[in-house]
Amino acid sequence: MPAAPSWNAYASECPTRMVLDRIADKWTVLILGLLGQQPWRFNALLRKIEGLSQKVLSQTLKRLERDGLVRRTVFPTAPVTVEYSLTPLGGTLADSLASLIRWAEENIDAVLAAQHRFDGQHDAGDRPA
Amino acid sequence: MPAAPSWNAYASECPTRMVLDRIADKWTVLILGLLGQQPWRFNALLRKIEGLSQKVLSQTLKRLERDGLVRRTVFPTAPVTVEYSLTPLGGTLADSLASLIRWAEENIDAVLAAQHRFDGQHDAGDRPA
Repeated sequence: MPAAPSWNAYASECPTRMVLDRIADKWTVLILGLLGQQPWRFNALLRKIEGLSQKVLSQTLKRLERDGLVRRTVFPTAPVTVEYSLTPLGGTLADSLASLIRWAEENIDAVLAAQHRFDGQHDAGDRPA
Repeated sequence: MPAAPSWNAYASECPTRMVLDRIADKWTVLILGLLGQQPWRFNALLRKIEGLSQKVLSQTLKRLERDGLVRRTVFPTAPVTVEYSLTPLGGTLADSLASLIRWAEENIDAVLAAQHRFDGQHDAGDRPA
């Protein structure tokens, strides 16, 4: 690694490509979107994000903790309470991701209309690039 | 579909979930990041984005065209020239995505350091959620 690296997500060997692959993931976006609002317990996240399995939630939270984006706090209640929250680093990412969710919710009508038009105009056949 | 739908990306049946899945994709982020700067020819995109195959680029561009985010323009040169650019709808998304790429490039050092700390502190074993 050079002493003063110039990161470039378009280079396949650049670690930023790995990070981008990590955060450009539907579940990651939805989880960090919620943690940007407040800390959440594991089971509350699981209930809130429909279609997300316990296994994938567990794996995703562990990855995010390893990446320094999420903090896992254990409270010595009985039974033990585990809460997930954003780290300061995770907080810097949450705004960008929240804007992606907003974009999807605000522009879904336009996307669905475009798909309808496209399907009416095109055959299923391939075209040259 | 209700007359005045309230979209919610956290509901598994909501179409916004599909859109989020579509745009939360590494190649989509990288492609729209470039198209946000200028129009690009197919082969120039292929050369610029290392690791991206011709097949995946072709599929991704066609999906983005169908979603109304990318415009495909054919110029009657010999051989034919095909150029890809953002639609106005695609332009509204490009800013959010560019900020994700910037985030990855600016924060990769912090992420790599966090991973190093995490790996030093944790065993490979599973923990309760």
